[in-house]
Formats: sequence, C-alpha cells, structure tokens
Amino acid sequence: MSFNSFGHLFRVTTWGESHGPALGATVDGCPPGVKIDEAMLQHWLDKRKPGQSKYTTQRREADEVKILSGVFEGETTGTPIQLMIENTDQRSKDYGDIAEKFRPGHADITYWQKYGIRDYRGGGRSSARETAARVAAGGVARAALASLIPDLKITGYMVQMGEHKTAKRDLDQIEQNPFWVPDAAAAETWATYLDGLRKSGSSVGAMIEVVASGAPAGLGAPVYAKLDTDLAAAMMSINAVKGVEIGAGMEAAMLTGEANADEISMGENGPEFSSNHAGGILGGISTGQDLVVRFAVKPTSSILTPRKTITKSGEATEIITKGRHDPCVGIRAVPVGEAMMACVLLDHVLLHRGQIGENRGEIG
Amino acid sequence: MSFNSFGHLFRVTTWGESHGPALGATVDGCPPGVKIDEAMLQHWLDKRKPGQSKYTTQRREADEVKILSGVFEGETTGTPIQLMIENTDQRSKDYGDIAEKFRPGHADITYWQKYGIRDYRGGGRSSARETAARVAAGGVARAALASLIPDLKITGYMVQMGEHKTAKRDLDQIEQNPFWVPDAAAAETWATYLDGLRKSGSSVGAMIEVVASGAPAGLGAPVYAKLDTDLAAAMMSINAVKGVEIGAGMEAAMLTGEANADEISMGENGPEFSSNHAGGILGGISTGQDLVVRFAVKPTSSILTPRKTITKSGEATEIITKGRHDPCVGIRAVPVGEAMMACVLLDHVLLHRGQIGENRGEIG
Amino acid sequence: MSFNSFGHLFRVTTWGESHGPALGATVDGCPPGVKIDEAMLQHWLDKRKPGQSKYTTQRREADEVKILSGVFEGETTGTPIQLMIENTDQRSKDYGDIAEKFRPGHADITYWQKYGIRDYRGGGRSSARETAARVAAGGVARAALASLIPDLKITGYMVQMGEHKTAKRDLDQIEQNPFWVPDAAAAETWATYLDGLRKSGSSVGAMIEVVASGAPAGLGAPVYAKLDTDLAAAMMSINAVKGVEIGAGMEAAMLTGEANADEISMGENGPEFSSNHAGGILGGISTGQDLVVRFAVKPTSSILTPRKTITKSGEATEIITKGRHDPCVGIRAVPVGEAMMACVLLDHVLLHRGQIGENRGEIG
Amino acid sequence: MSFNSFGHLFRVTTWGESHGPALGATVDGCPPGVKIDEAMLQHWLDKRKPGQSKYTTQRREADEVKILSGVFEGETTGTPIQLMIENTDQRSKDYGDIAEKFRPGHADITYWQKYGIRDYRGGGRSSARETAARVAAGGVARAALASLIPDLKITGYMVQMGEHKTAKRDLDQIEQNPFWVPDAAAAETWATYLDGLRKSGSSVGAMIEVVASGAPAGLGAPVYAKLDTDLAAAMMSINAVKGVEIGAGMEAAMLTGEANADEISMGENGPEFSSNHAGGILGGISTGQDLVVRFAVKPTSSILTPRKTITKSGEATEIITKGRHDPCVGIRAVPVGEAMMACVLLDHVLLHRGQIGENRGEIG
Repeated sequence: MSFNSFGHLFRVTTWGESHGPALGATVDGCPPGVKIDEAMLQHWLDKRKPGQSKYTTQRREADEVKILSGVFEGETTGTPIQLMIENTDQRSKDYGDIAEKFRPGHADITYWQKYGIRDYRGGGRSSARETAARVAAGGVARAALASLIPDLKITGYMVQMGEHKTAKRDLDQIEQNPFWVPDAAAAETWATYLDGLRKSGSSVGAMIEVVASGAPAGLGAPVYAKLDTDLAAAMMSINAVKGVEIGAGMEAAMLTGEANADEISMGENGPEFSSNHAGGILGGISTGQDLVVRFAVKPTSSILTPRKTITKSGEATEIITKGRHDPCVGIRAVPVGEAMMACVLLDHVLLHRGQIGENRGEIG
Repeated sequence: MSFNSFGHLFRVTTWGESHGPALGATVDGCPPGVKIDEAMLQHWLDKRKPGQSKYTTQRREADEVKILSGVFEGETTGTPIQLMIENTDQRSKDYGDIAEKFRPGHADITYWQKYGIRDYRGGGRSSARETAARVAAGGVARAALASLIPDLKITGYMVQMGEHKTAKRDLDQIEQNPFWVPDAAAAETWATYLDGLRKSGSSVGAMIEVVASGAPAGLGAPVYAKLDTDLAAAMMSINAVKGVEIGAGMEAAMLTGEANADEISMGENGPEFSSNHAGGILGGISTGQDLVVRFAVKPTSSILTPRKTITKSGEATEIITKGRHDPCVGIRAVPVGEAMMACVLLDHVLLHRGQIGENRGEIG
Repeated sequence: MSFNSFGHLFRVTTWGESHGPALGATVDGCPPGVKIDEAMLQHWLDKRKPGQSKYTTQRREADEVKILSGVFEGETTGTPIQLMIENTDQRSKDYGDIAEKFRPGHADITYWQKYGIRDYRGGGRSSARETAARVAAGGVARAALASLIPDLKITGYMVQMGEHKTAKRDLDQIEQNPFWVPDAAAAETWATYLDGLRKSGSSVGAMIEVVASGAPAGLGAPVYAKLDTDLAAAMMSINAVKGVEIGAGMEAAMLTGEANADEISMGENGPEFSSNHAGGILGGISTGQDLVVRFAVKPTSSILTPRKTITKSGEATEIITKGRHDPCVGIRAVPVGEAMMACVLLDHVLLHRGQIGENRGEIG
Repeated sequence: MSFNSFGHLFRVTTWGESHGPALGATVDGCPPGVKIDEAMLQHWLDKRKPGQSKYTTQRREADEVKILSGVFEGETTGTPIQLMIENTDQRSKDYGDIAEKFRPGHADITYWQKYGIRDYRGGGRSSARETAARVAAGGVARAALASLIPDLKITGYMVQMGEHKTAKRDLDQIEQNPFWVPDAAAAETWATYLDGLRKSGSSVGAMIEVVASGAPAGLGAPVYAKLDTDLAAAMMSINAVKGVEIGAGMEAAMLTGEANADEISMGENGPEFSSNHAGGILGGISTGQDLVVRFAVKPTSSILTPRKTITKSGEATEIITKGRHDPCVGIRAVPVGEAMMACVLLDHVLLHRGQIGENRGEIG
C-alpha cells in the first residue's frame, strides 16, 4: 500500500523530483520473456518530452531512460525493472521567487503544510516531471501486452482545449499535429488559439480521451478491482487531472434507461452492442467493446498575470510564475494517459489469468 | 490487494450477493475506543434502504445491521468489525426471465463470461445491494471521524436528475424531500418528472455531490495515495457510476489559468482561498477547504420498454425487466457516496498520522 | 495491508473473538467453479474442534461453519466467500478472575496496553479460537487446489511433545491417535505423559511438521513473495507459535556446504534431488520436492500452578487459570498448520499463473 | 502486493541483480524531516561489504550508495527515497561454468524453470548482493527510529557457526572480531575453524541473533500484522535463511507452561518480567522487553568439492564453484538482520501511530 505505487500484480512505484539528480520507476511483476530495450521505451518518452513544439515547456530535458535491472539480453527476467531518467536541465534560478511564496493552484502550500519541507527550486515530487516515469513504465506494459493481446491498440488524443471541442475522431490525424487532436481543422484553430494564450502568458485546460480497442471481455472484478475503479484512480492520479469518466461519463446523468442501455446482439465473433454508453465496462468487467476513458486536465497555474498569494510567513503578496511552462499541459498528458491505460490493462490481464485462467462462460 | 477491499489502513472488505442469505462488510483498522452501536449504523442504512418512498424500489428489505465482532461494551476494540445484513425479501420469482437472457446495461453478460456462473435470481454480487455494506462501514468511519475531527461534516445531495439541474445549495432542504436535493423548488419539479418516468416504466440518471467541510489541510500523499485518486476510485467503485470529478471537475478543461487558480490570502485561522476550483485538493493533498466530489450515476437498465438482447445460447431475443427497481437509482446513491467519503477520509487521517504525526509546516 | 488479512491473490481476512456471537473468515480471490459445501469445510473444522479427546480443552463448541456468500449451487462464484462460525459455549463465568489480572504468557497485557480495551471474558481476538476461521478458509483452499493440482497432498503431524521427539514418519499412524503423531509407539508414550500433565494442571509445548507433496516446481518469487517467506509468516501468525523452519531449518547452522547442498540428477519426470535440506525451496521458489515446514508451539500459560502477575492497577498478585484449556495446544495446531499451507500454496499457484502463465524453462 | 516489496507503511522495494549495472531500494513512507545522508547509510553498508576480511568473499565491491530522491538539504521529504548502489566488480569470467550447469543449493534451477531466463554470469536476482539494498534501506529506518524512539538499540551478532555455539552475550566484543560474535574466546576458536574451512574450499552455516532493546510496548496487531509474523517474514526473506525463531523459539516445544510463562511484576517504569521466553512479544504485540529474533543461515553451496548436478539439457555432470564466495555467509547476514529489524520496527511504529495514536491502556 505504498503511497507512490499503483497496480496489483503489475506494480509500478515511481520516485524522484523535478530538481533532483534523477527520477524513475520500479516496475515489479512484469511477465518474463518480454522483449524490451531502451529505444522502445524512449519512443514513448519522446512523445511526452518537453520542448517538442512551441506549445510545450521550453525546459530541455533529454528524458533518456536507462534500464538498470530486470532485463537480460533484451528480455525481461520477471524480476523488478528499474527505469531511471536523469534530470539534466534543472535551471533552478528561474524558480527563485517560489521559495517563499506559494503558487496558487500548485501543491506548494499543501506539501509545505504536510511535510514541512520546501524544495524552493520547483515542484519537487508534485511536479509533472513525475509522469515521465509513468510513461517509461507504460512502455514496459505495452511491450508485455503486445505478446499477451496482440490485437490490443491504445490510442490517446485531445478532444477539448478550453472552449474548443472536437467531435471528430479521425485517428489518422493524431500524429499530424502537435496537439494529438484527431481533427485536422481543429488542429489549425487550436494552433491559433494556443499561440494567443502562449504569448499572453496565459494557459488553458484540456480534455483527453484514451481508447483501448481489442481488449477481451472478462477483465476486471467486483468493487475495488473493477476495471473502471482502477482506470479512474490511474487517471486521477496524473498531475492536474480533475475529473475522469468512462463511456457516457458525466452525461449518463442526463440519459434515460432506454437511451443508455447498449442493446446486445450476436455477432460472428461473439456478442456485439448497438452502442457503447458503457465505455466497454459492465459491473466493473470488460465487455470486449472499446474501453473509453476521458479525463480533464486543469490549466497550469504558472501564468504571467499576477495572482494574489501569501508567503511562508503568512504575508500577503503577489506572484507571477516566469518559469518555463506549458500553456496547455493537457497536450503532454496524452502519452501519460495512454501509459496509465497500458499499465491498468496489463495488471488486469495478469489478475484475470491468476484468478480465472481463461474466461469460463461461453455464449452461443 | 483483495478484489473486494478498499482503503489502506482503514480497510473495508464487502461480501455477499443480492439473493444469498446475507451480505456485509469486514472492517479492519478502525481505531479502538470509538463508541458505536447498531442503532448508529442503522441510521445511515435507513437512508439508503429501499422502499422508503414511491421513487425507490419496492423491494422490502429491513436492512438490519448486526455487529458480530470488534465492538465490546459499546466501543470498538481495534480488531476487525464484522457487519452483517441478512437478506429477507428475496422474491426470486420476479427475476425468472433473466436466467437465460442478458439484461442490457447490467453485468449479467460480463459476469457470465468471466466467471461462468449465473445466479439466475438477480444481480448476485453485481447488485446495488452490495452498497448497503458500504453504508454500514461508512457509519463506523463516521463514528471514528467524529472523535478525530469533531468539526468534520459530510453532506451528500443530488444536483441533477436527467436534464434537471439545480444550481442551488440550500442544505437545509436536503432532508425535506425524497431526492436529497438542496432546493425546494427543484424537489417539486423532480417529483412530477420522476412520477412520469416511474409510471411509464422508464428510468433516468443523476448526479450526486458530496462535500466534506472541516477537513484539515495535509491529508493525502503523492501519486497513488492522492486524496483525489482515492476519492475517484471510491466513487467509481459504486454501482452504476460512470464519472467522477473533483472541484471544477470536467469543467476545468474549459478554464484559463487565470480563472482556475484559487488565490490565497491569510485568514485568522490560516490560509484562505478566493474560490475552490481545486475542490479542496492540491497535489493530492487537502488544502483545508471544502472537499467537493461529484459523480454521475447512469439510469438503471431495468425498464419496461423491450430491449434487444441475446440468450446464453447466443440467440436474439428481447427483454423487459419487470422486477422491483428504481426509476432513479441515483437517489439511493447519495448515502453511499457519503459513506465512501467517510471511509476515504478516515483512512487518510490514519495514514497521515502514521507517516507524519502532525502537519509539520507552519504558515505565519 | 489489512492487519487481519493474509495472502496476495487468494486473500483471507479473519474476524471475531472468543466470546462474541460469532467469528469467521472473508475469503477473496478464490477461482470460480470450485465445488464446495459446508460439509467439506466441516470435515477440517472437526479435526480442530475442541473437546475431541480428553487431551484438548473441554470447551464444547459445535464449530459449525455456515457459507453466507460466494457459493451458488455448490460452486464458488469467484466473489468473496463469507464463512461464519457461531460461538455457542461461552461460559464466561469461568474466566472471572482474569478481568483484573494479566495472565502471564497471554496477550492480556499487550492488548490492554495497546488498545485500552479488556474483554474480561477471555482472550477476545487473541484467543486461539481465531484459528477455526483459518481452518475453514483452508478448506476452501484445499478444494481449489484439488482441481488445480490434483496430485497435491498436504499432511500435518506432531513430531515433538515436550522432550519427546519422534523420528518416525509412519504417515498411516497419524489418524490412529489423538496426537496426530506418525508413530504408534510414541502415541502410547505421549498419552501417558500428557495424562500426567493434564492431571497436574500443567501444559507442554510441541513441534508440528507440515509437508506438501506433489507441488510443482516454480511456485514463489523473489524477496517478499518467496514461498518460504510466506510460509514463515503464515505459520508464525498462528497463536502460540515461536519458531518456524524450512527443510533443514535451524540445523542448517550446523551443516557444511558439502552436507547441505542437495545434489541434482535427472529423473524420468524431471530433476531429482539426493536429499531435501532445502525443504523443497531454493531462492524462494519451489523445486518440486516435498515442501517441508516445521513450527514450534509454546505451552499454554493457562495452568493450575499459581504464577506471579499484576493487576490493571499495577498491584502484585498471583493467578491460577482454571478455565477449560489444552494441556498441549500443539495438538490442535496440526489442522491449523495444514490450513495455512493450503492457503499459501493456492495463493502462489494463482500468483504464478498470473505473472508467468506456465513454467517457461525446460530441462532436458 | 509487489513481489519485491516489504513493509506496510514504511515500504521498501528492492531491485537489481548481481551482474547488472546497479541495484538498489525504493523506500516509500519514510516520515519527513529525518536527517540523512549518504555517509550515514554507508556506515551500515560497510559492515556488510564483501572483502572486509579473509573470511568473506573477495569480490571487491565499493558498495557506494547514492541517494537519488526523497532527501532535500539533508532531510527526508516524506516522498520516495531512491537508493542506488552501482555494481563495479562484475568479473563474470569467473562464473562461466554455471551458464549450463545448475549449482546444487542455489536458485539456478528454480529461476530457470519458472522464468526461463538464465543470467549465466551469476545469481542474478537471487544473489545475496540483493541484501545490500536492504542494508541501505535499513539505514534510513534506523535514522527515522532514532528520532521516534531515541532509546531503541538494535544489535545483531552471531551465536553459532557450525557446531560452535556461544552462550556468552558480551556485546562489547561484537565489534572486536570479524565474526560479530559476542565472545572473545569464541572469536579465536572460530577463526581457526573457519580458516580450515576456507582453505579446504568448504563452507558452513551459522545462526544470528538480533535484539532490539528499548522498543515500547504496544507495537504489532493481530494475525497478519503481528510483530512476530512480520519479523519472521523479514528474516526468512533474507537469502539462505532456513529458520526463524522468537524468544525461546523452537525450544518452546520442550517447555512446560510453568517454565515458559514469564511472570509479571510492577517496576518503576511499568511492568517487568521475570524472564523473556516470549522474546518480547505476546499475542503479536510487543511487551516492552527486548525483542529477540534468531535465524539460521545455511552454508553456501559454492564449494570446491565436486557435487553432482545436471545441465540445462538434463545431462548428468559435476560442478565445482570456483568463484569468490564466503566460507560462512552468515557473517555478512548480521548487518542484514539488523536492517530488517529496523525496517520492521519503523513500519510498526508508524502503523501503531496510524491506528492508535498512543497506547491507550494504562497500568497502575
């Protein structure tokens, strides 16, 4: 029940701060014999890496991951995999102002109150840099899933930036724009919009959707190993996330029973559903449909407009956060959400195999 | 990492099915010396009990809780508390039709596929009756919290039923209507609306808000012991919940950094905030503000309109669910949400005391 | 990380006190489709039941186990199994003297100091009655193991009572005497010896050996999921146990490397070993040999000889424990040790299947 | 329920192999504000370090520990502490022979069967090098304990090497000889004895005792958070340990109730006991007496006498292990046992504070 761990059988513990020498993830419970190397993990880290476009923080981190254990001659050994990412660009001088002042919307004040320790150089453990470790661990999970469920595909993308929503799901577009938005037209509008925000030193929230297609029916379990319970926890544990929804999500509150229930028919490869309000989960267990999760990321509070705050000694003051920050942190949350989906799914595949072996109930 | 357990130090394991002899909760880790008796727990169970008004299922369960262990002469002993609720009204004849057919929107199909066992009498473990056990456990948590944080107050209420939202938060009204809606006018509109749905055999979703006021700053921890992580998991683990949000929630996606960041000033009793978009949590740790969680409950799929489905042998058919069900299951989710809030908070109070003792950082 | 739970995937939480209305076990994670009924569990409980011979406590408990959940039409459903045993003979008058005095060698004084609660009627949670719940849970584990590893056989027996050791392992004798000693001659000697102790109101310690034959190679994992780590914890968690050893055990301290290392050869069905100093475990993982665990049970401190002690108010006094107690509690620890072995093995079979699927390395 | 983690609130996950680039420990749940630096941890590592005398392996590892996270300006922050030790002397050529042959008494065969991966350079994850990570984590635990229980003193020493036992407990002698034996005369005898073994390429087992004095009453909890349960698991999880005992230990099997029960009297600072057969633990909870644990370490199987074994292809062969090994690995297990005691105690101090706050029952 480690504070910094998640997962049941596939268990990830992240460690490290934004301005320490390194951060990383201790990954335990990975099946043996999974082909893995640093380049594979780097691929996912590069998606999250800062400084990729003018729309993300200009902090220049190589974010190079090293595998320190658990892999031998290119295959996982079944023992703990240590993934380490060294911090290289720790320009702490940029952060000087925050040593004494609490940044509104940041964890400065709560960490100080609880722990009585203040890393004046930045967010420390509460920094979004922690998510690099998750992306690395997610890379391991993806590799293991690739052999266990070859048809599984995990795709994350933005569906909203501020007031701008996209209804389109043109997945081919995702890699074509710096926002991972599945909509070419939206990508252009958003670019203009975010440019404006960036220049004015403002920021904005976002909504990300992560879909896993090809997952089998039967993953999950009652109550606290519900697939949706674990997905909710996984996504909510990401920095700046304020809401998580599955399938119809918060909209389910508006629906009638007739509209909400996904009707069932028999397809060639098993049950099919007329719609997917359930987001692929019924009673905490996967139906075989797409698993659909969305989460909202708040705008970073690091903005150029002065905000009222107090100092450690309780005096009123104002703060402008001049550091290198993201006008829309939601962009970089996309690969993080994918990584969490991968970790949760691998964990449930192993749990399912552990308790059940193979699905026991046949249909047809 | 029990499938059916939640909590770290204050740990609840629920058990039991809708049509078995009994269900209950094994509550471990409660502090000793907490005054508790069956009547105290019954108070909360009666809020959730079916058949309280014409708007909830007419299944008549006494829902009488018995304490089988862990309490001696009216005080908790610090050892496991076993709470048992016997099922009394198990009219299984009503459910005959579902033995062979899968109810759309229910867990029938996923439980069958995974476990290969079908309790033809009803939802079995996936039934919302499981939440009675959580409410009983929540009663224990409330009693423990009453001595640890005397100022803490947990209040749940409905803020939306179908298209009908209430913006009002007139807490005095909550107990005055069968919907726990904090708005007298809404209560009337909703009564008419739900009456119509009930008579037509339809159902509708709902949104519930649970607020904890008086919680101290400092509860929570990074990553997977984040207060919001645990609240998200706790609420998402409730039957029929499809989305969870904290503070500004999904709306955070729309906000700019200027609008979202709650400014800080120094009050007489410590830091104060100009607003509460954070929902009382920054970096996973409580700020001392109100903790605000909302969750959406889907409409029950047990409706009189025929829905297409399949049988266990894979044949196409239709189903009408005639059983005794709730036109708006969200109503009875209110005390369940409160119970989960109580369990999560007690757990974090104990975790905080365990790791930290008392908050270490002073302000002012 | 519940205080009263053990196991990883197959997870048992016991609850209840010696003088409350009932005690039991919440068993989570059992595979579905395991045939189980109350009679099967009762078989094992009857082995442990008090009052079976003049050598065990005369407390007359029916120890009838009821299955309250998790079993439907004779098969496990994969959801939590609640096992309840009602206390029937709670003659609390016998225990009057211990309300104010701490019994030496009992947990009275530590429970009082820690929890500040004193169940003056008996041992409460620290009573060996708790082990009835483990035996019931062990019955579930045995049933699941019977289908997963048909060749597995778990056999417990006494190898020492006081100064009397048996070197013989004549397993056919185990059920032929009230001591579960695999040695007909020892059974006679021990009967005389224990009769004397019983009449003089004394008590004596014992050593129990539990062997599992037929377990496959590959169960276990490094460090804290080592099979021997879990067996040590499982056995040490039984009341009155003061030591646990695997294979050569404490004697390993005396051996040279030449004597200790079990040489390996190739048999028809895989590797064979010239001896079993390892107790069937190397590096925390099973070798396929017999798994051999021994544990020492201290003599009960409930004796007729007056012992010096103090009262709750700190005054010096003496105590004689007149209650109904066992001259050799080790006898009834035999089925408890077997139950713990079954629970640990099932847990590791599921863990192994979860992480690995099937053993990956072939020999020959 | 990570395979490679131990502890509840103070939770340590070790990682790394004998011949990889590094190994270490991720330490989560440490209280904040504990003064710690690399030199403090190095002190303990140096005790365990190979090559300290001619009686331990000649592998020359600097065993330099680096703190990568969780410590800021010399104090723990309350977030995960990453401790890394780089492997420097990995002379893998020495190990060539074991690529194809299974060393009897080593985990080669079980790791191969389970994981299907064979690190032909050495023990990999099953190597005793893993214990370096525990010693580093134990150093953190000691530092935290120093502020929480200033009077606590943890002392480990050897009490047996092969047939040679010491009855003496002259603690001043421990640091005066390379065996950590509390007996000057024994140290001399043992030196001669071990010299002989070393020269003949043989090895021998050992028994280690670890005592914690100054621990308060009240630590522990029922069943699976018993202090003795956790100590048994902690010690048994150390490489090569085959038995663990508390207080009278296995000898308890021989005792009568009169001999075993430690009588209680009232001392100036609370209850006192006439003896300590209990090893400081009753009902799983500490009494305030010395906590006394012993464990047996088997002789290393790396010896010069040829032993029969098989190859991966199942052919009969012989093996001589020429590598750099310890004639008595028990020597280096002393600081490891101390470290495990420290980790378990800190964990229980935090658990106790979490659930209880302070002891609730007064005496006198």
